Amino acid sequence: MKIFVTGGAGFIGSHIVDYLIGRGDDVVIYDNFCTGQEIFIKHHFDNQRFTLIKDDVLNFNALKKAMKDSDFVFHIAGHADVRGGYTDHDIDLKQNFMATQNVLEAMHQLNIKNIAFSSTSSVYGDAILHPTPESYPFEPTSLYGAAKANSENYIYTYAHYYDWNAYIFRFVSWIGERYTHGCIFDFMKKLKADSSHLYMLSDGTPKKSSLYVKDGVNAIFTIIEKSSEKINIYNLGHEEVTTIKNIADIVCDELGLKKVQYTFEGGDKGWMGDNKFVHLSIDKLKQLGWEPTVNIEEGIRRTVRYLKESSFLLNAR
Amino acid sequence: MKIFVTGGAGFIGSHIVDYLIGRGDDVVIYDNFCTGQEIFIKHHFDNQRFTLIKDDVLNFNALKKAMKDSDFVFHIAGHADVRGGYTDHDIDLKQNFMATQNVLEAMHQLNIKNIAFSSTSSVYGDAILHPTPESYPFEPTSLYGAAKANSENYIYTYAHYYDWNAYIFRFVSWIGERYTHGCIFDFMKKLKADSSHLYMLSDGTPKKSSLYVKDGVNAIFTIIEKSSEKINIYNLGHEEVTTIKNIADIVCDELGLKKVQYTFEGGDKGWMGDNKFVHLSIDKLKQLGWEPTVNIEEGIRRTVRYLKESSFLLNAR
Repeated sequence: MKIFVTGGAGFIGSHIVDYLIGRGDDVVIYDNFCTGQEIFIKHHFDNQRFTLIKDDVLNFNALKKAMKDSDFVFHIAGHADVRGGYTDHDIDLKQNFMATQNVLEAMHQLNIKNIAFSSTSSVYGDAILHPTPESYPFEPTSLYGAAKANSENYIYTYAHYYDWNAYIFRFVSWIGERYTHGCIFDFMKKLKADSSHLYMLSDGTPKKSSLYVKDGVNAIFTIIEKSSEKINIYNLGHEEVTTIKNIADIVCDELGLKKVQYTFEGGDKGWMGDNKFVHLSIDKLKQLGWEPTVNIEEGIRRTVRYLKESSFLLNAR
Repeated sequence: MKIFVTGGAGFIGSHIVDYLIGRGDDVVIYDNFCTGQEIFIKHHFDNQRFTLIKDDVLNFNALKKAMKDSDFVFHIAGHADVRGGYTDHDIDLKQNFMATQNVLEAMHQLNIKNIAFSSTSSVYGDAILHPTPESYPFEPTSLYGAAKANSENYIYTYAHYYDWNAYIFRFVSWIGERYTHGCIFDFMKKLKADSSHLYMLSDGTPKKSSLYVKDGVNAIFTIIEKSSEKINIYNLGHEEVTTIKNIADIVCDELGLKKVQYTFEGGDKGWMGDNKFVHLSIDKLKQLGWEPTVNIEEGIRRTVRYLKESSFLLNAR
């Protein structure tokens, strides 16, 4: 199979590419390197089955040309900064919705009938049901969540119109090797500048799940291989949750910092649009036989160790 | 209050305008007259409280200028041809989603904090739960439904970000005076050309609710006056459903045509993206004290009588 991966040089995309190359597929990465990193994929550069195209999903003609003859599209590219949409109302519209519309339209014009899409727990917003099942309606409290939900709506319709197989994954935060953004990243950057003090955006109480990247990739391919609907929507999460303060404690401990003073700058949400409790039901996914193998604390520790060894990432942003 | 009504010269919009003018509000209609009709609103032309602006919601600068100093926005403008989105993938994106995004952005920039929006039962697609409650997730089978659902996502987020009051109405088909499109319209147009024969797009079995326009307008203002959440999402429908064949029977009977031969050209859906069973739960709305006063058959008969007296509409399209 020839697989097309938008955002294939990014954190999650590059792990998907590793899996696909390992499985023996031909893989085309399409990435604008806005947050993607050459170092995440350069071990494939000598592989004849690997092609890298540096361009933007919003460039429709380039996208369509690159996608030609593909059998399956992983649309993983996106703007992952949930906070930014509050001050910039255009960025999620373009990067997270219009980009998806371009992908769908290119697929339709090229008669490609398989898509996998990285959606988000943010589509549920401040859900009042926990763990939140896939049947919960969209209540997005951020334009990030709204634009991802919009992409899901469009995927649903294109899949219905043209009899595609669609796989929609609603992710909690992913952690682990090649992690490039999120609160662990922010904490480590701040502690690098001042190891005695840590400022947090919230009061430390927001409680969320995280998923270790290799467990996440296994979940993706479990779903693709085992689910049988035309349109398959799955939460990808963890039975555990952890508070932001607890994440900070684990980061400090893994860094060997014993006496960090915390300052809590906000309330029970870290920013406008943040959700104070994110816990997805993973019952549907577990029915396919999948279980997470790494607990959240161990996932956080692996992330910290990775970033310690990859200080170029902390320095770059 | 100064109320801004996009699509205020259209079928539903003009009835809302009548109600608002009757209540004593200042009303600004903003309409591109794509499907709006001057005849629906000209009885207000001498009213000092009435302003008409002919322009397009997609023209952001004109929209923002016209909306200035409004207290409440009814965003009723939209592209209502559900079928058309299958062959033209741009029209719903622009007319039903980007237009809404323009309205929201103009409201935000002008600090207007109240919005009512005409959504649709099509957001539920081929729901497997009937009557379908508001908590059912989006499963749109048409780009019309997807673009309306996208608008809802964006309204939800803007309302959350900026503490707005939002009223989202998911409509079944509306019928009654000033009806300008839909199957009754199509049947009458066909019967006008050949009163002995009626071709139907489906096998006649699709089963749907309809709502008489004056009951619908009463529902809208019942919700706005009585509901108490910041974001209020309501189905607007009817406890009755009727098949497409039954609608044809009533149309023919009301026209005095006794021996029309039916030809069923399709299957259990009239077109790609159509839904064979649309029946919304109206329990939430009934809890506010609202009930429909006109049954579906009577609503169809009134629609036929109106179109008989308004043959310019049948001739125009």
